[in-house]
Amino acid sequence: MATTQRMVVIGANAAGMSAASQARRLKPVGELEIVVLERGGYTSYSACGIPYWVGGDVAGVDDLIARTPEQHRERDIDLRLYTEVTALDPDGRRVRVRGRGDGGPPGEWLGYDQLVIATGARPLRPELPGIDAPGVHGVQTMEDGRALLEALERIEAARSAGTPRRAVVIGAGYIGVEMAEALIRRGHEVTVVDRAEQPMTTLDPDMGRLVREAMCRMGIETVTGATVTAIRTGEDGRARAVATEDTEYEADIVVLGLGVRPETELAREAGLPLGGSEGLLTDLAMRVRGREDIWAGGDCVEVLDLVSGRTRHVALGTHANKHGQVIGTNIGGGYATFPGVVGTAVSKVCDLEIARTGLSEEQARALGLRFTTVTIESTSRAGYYPGAAPMHVKMLAERRTGRLLGAQIVGREGAGKRVDVAAVALSAGMTVEQMTALDLGYAPPFSPLWDPVLVAARKAAAEVRRAGAH
Amino acid sequence: MATTQRMVVIGANAAGMSAASQARRLKPVGELEIVVLERGGYTSYSACGIPYWVGGDVAGVDDLIARTPEQHRERDIDLRLYTEVTALDPDGRRVRVRGRGDGGPPGEWLGYDQLVIATGARPLRPELPGIDAPGVHGVQTMEDGRALLEALERIEAARSAGTPRRAVVIGAGYIGVEMAEALIRRGHEVTVVDRAEQPMTTLDPDMGRLVREAMCRMGIETVTGATVTAIRTGEDGRARAVATEDTEYEADIVVLGLGVRPETELAREAGLPLGGSEGLLTDLAMRVRGREDIWAGGDCVEVLDLVSGRTRHVALGTHANKHGQVIGTNIGGGYATFPGVVGTAVSKVCDLEIARTGLSEEQARALGLRFTTVTIESTSRAGYYPGAAPMHVKMLAERRTGRLLGAQIVGREGAGKRVDVAAVALSAGMTVEQMTALDLGYAPPFSPLWDPVLVAARKAAAEVRRAGAH
Repeated sequence: MATTQRMVVIGANAAGMSAASQARRLKPVGELEIVVLERGGYTSYSACGIPYWVGGDVAGVDDLIARTPEQHRERDIDLRLYTEVTALDPDGRRVRVRGRGDGGPPGEWLGYDQLVIATGARPLRPELPGIDAPGVHGVQTMEDGRALLEALERIEAARSAGTPRRAVVIGAGYIGVEMAEALIRRGHEVTVVDRAEQPMTTLDPDMGRLVREAMCRMGIETVTGATVTAIRTGEDGRARAVATEDTEYEADIVVLGLGVRPETELAREAGLPLGGSEGLLTDLAMRVRGREDIWAGGDCVEVLDLVSGRTRHVALGTHANKHGQVIGTNIGGGYATFPGVVGTAVSKVCDLEIARTGLSEEQARALGLRFTTVTIESTSRAGYYPGAAPMHVKMLAERRTGRLLGAQIVGREGAGKRVDVAAVALSAGMTVEQMTALDLGYAPPFSPLWDPVLVAARKAAAEVRRAGAH
Repeated sequence: MATTQRMVVIGANAAGMSAASQARRLKPVGELEIVVLERGGYTSYSACGIPYWVGGDVAGVDDLIARTPEQHRERDIDLRLYTEVTALDPDGRRVRVRGRGDGGPPGEWLGYDQLVIATGARPLRPELPGIDAPGVHGVQTMEDGRALLEALERIEAARSAGTPRRAVVIGAGYIGVEMAEALIRRGHEVTVVDRAEQPMTTLDPDMGRLVREAMCRMGIETVTGATVTAIRTGEDGRARAVATEDTEYEADIVVLGLGVRPETELAREAGLPLGGSEGLLTDLAMRVRGREDIWAGGDCVEVLDLVSGRTRHVALGTHANKHGQVIGTNIGGGYATFPGVVGTAVSKVCDLEIARTGLSEEQARALGLRFTTVTIESTSRAGYYPGAAPMHVKMLAERRTGRLLGAQIVGREGAGKRVDVAAVALSAGMTVEQMTALDLGYAPPFSPLWDPVLVAARKAAAEVRRAGAH
């Protein structure tokens, strides 16, 4: 008779719950007991949906929840909310657990046969005077989203219709620009402040400048090259302005959109292997390196970047979900791997679509690569077709080999998802010359005669040939 | 001193003019004389744009013309409009040419050093009683489009606003459904009649059924499995109904949307090699097989289908343009090839987007392949994001190898161009298992957590594994 094994999962979001669900699909209760420990009160929610909830595109919090705690429990998953893990003991194969009502440390030990670490990420919070003042909001968790939304509604109700409501977003990366859109949609005057010279530093500066110009046209004040030095508070102790080295920006509300770091304190304390960005290091089956019975996935790990050959931290729900699937399959007795990423990301701010994949110029240079870059301007549809919108495509190709290294797109409707063509080409190791022959869908409502990605590939191929002569 | 060579191009549309322009870019007038012979009066126009011109999406005919005769002539291309080629003499390296004012045959001989055949395609016109009656319109050339538009305007002006205006489209393929949309948009009652059991026979019947259902919801009467036997004419000699074996459909206007055949009569008479669809056969440099100095491209050739390994006829402006580039580069002294197609096509009828790439079930069976098929339903954006529209993705994967064989998509906004991911994967020879790990752009306004193409790949990969057990 087989003994029942226990799978313990830390974190009940995308990676953790995917792992639990997939393992349950493959193994019945008699063979595998599944315990999920979650610090907060929500499960399986779309954190990436929070800006759209705040902006009013998504009606309610329930829409963001793919599966409720009850739904998980019905599938024989022992889900424990408001339950914190305070320590890992890999050699003893146990974790220390403290429930909400359990008072102080240290909590009880819970043994496991297989441990899944899916602790996610924590938002970056610079150590600034006033950072903890009321009126300063993060947007990482559902609780954050709810608090921000309530604060916004209070501000909006208190002010008369004609009075400007001012919001300052710190950080002009993905979260920052998405939050800027959300706040603009709610009728706030929005200022985005970032230390970098251009918004969206995952793009090259020339493409970031296009984003900045578009943001300005949308009425979003975009302050770059500016380091925030403090959050100024009023007599009531609430945030009232964001100060930089040069000036300060009035704010009824301050939103932190600075990105995230892997939440791996427990793993570090337990001596588990971390990479340069503090993400857990795993093998391709998502097993923590050097450990037979510990797995990790989602925003707390580093993944292999297939273009650079290095591991890095990429916090995206779509990857987290795949990690969970892989872990659940492997614990469930199957076989699956997560081969890695090519660095694809897509976002939008109002009607501007922004996408990138592969290496930026800076990343390529840091790897010692020599490359050519081209940028082309084309349209999303045939030029004569209604709604044809301009788009810019930048492409990087390695010299001599002509291998595609990366692509960046800034445009309007229909621009963003075109990055997928470059993402697949990167996965396949295609050269830009090979890409020029790709058989992409063409009809006037969908594309010009040459798809913009092919126009860029064609120009890049010509540049590679030209550079090859030297 | 180099002698001047003469390049003669037959046909001044996408392939012909791209070849001429590209050759001119690479060789100056002193080295290469370029003569283009065109039967009609237009150059470099988007035939695929005609339905949108007729439907009113495109303001005027000028919008469809990428480059005018004058613009070509300014670039030292000797463009002769209304000039017909009546015979090819490959051994004598000359073509027989008759101008509009030249009266009867046989015309003068014009010698060449390099000949480019870009004669395009002719629309299929079934031999039916009444097919040549006034009121029966093709939509292949700009002249066709203009004649149809004038006829529609006459009908619309003559009828009072409340009177239904009835149009029948024969053929429910790409051109047929695009014309159905154009006519619906002009306020006509539209019936589409096709011999096949479902519209869009480049899709499998199950996906075609989705198209048919959507067309019915749009108010387009879609009659399938019906063979047209005659065009009935009234006392004035004009078309007044389309008769099938069972019944007849009243029509103020009849549009032929039956697809096209390669226009290769001259090539056949000259003994040049043709494939099964009557398209010219070329090598990968677009040189007519067995001929050193004759090239062919565009809608008059067959191209290599990289998935089936066979040549076939694919009439698409995007390919024609590439062929012309390749021919012009090679004649200009450079090197380029057109490796082939994977069979990608995208279209729309009103807000329904239809796309396919690779092999259909019927095509795969004809090649002796064993395969699994899956069809999934998902949404274009995260389910909770506004505008998330349902889409169906069908995928074919070879048994044992798991290689992707084809994909078909039917959905709303954002569905069609997703076929590009499958098109690139086909070019790269990916398996559906490999596809499950693709790093596609994710954000709630752009995709669910799993892109619909990945959902299909994942299901297909599971099916391949299951089938592998047998």
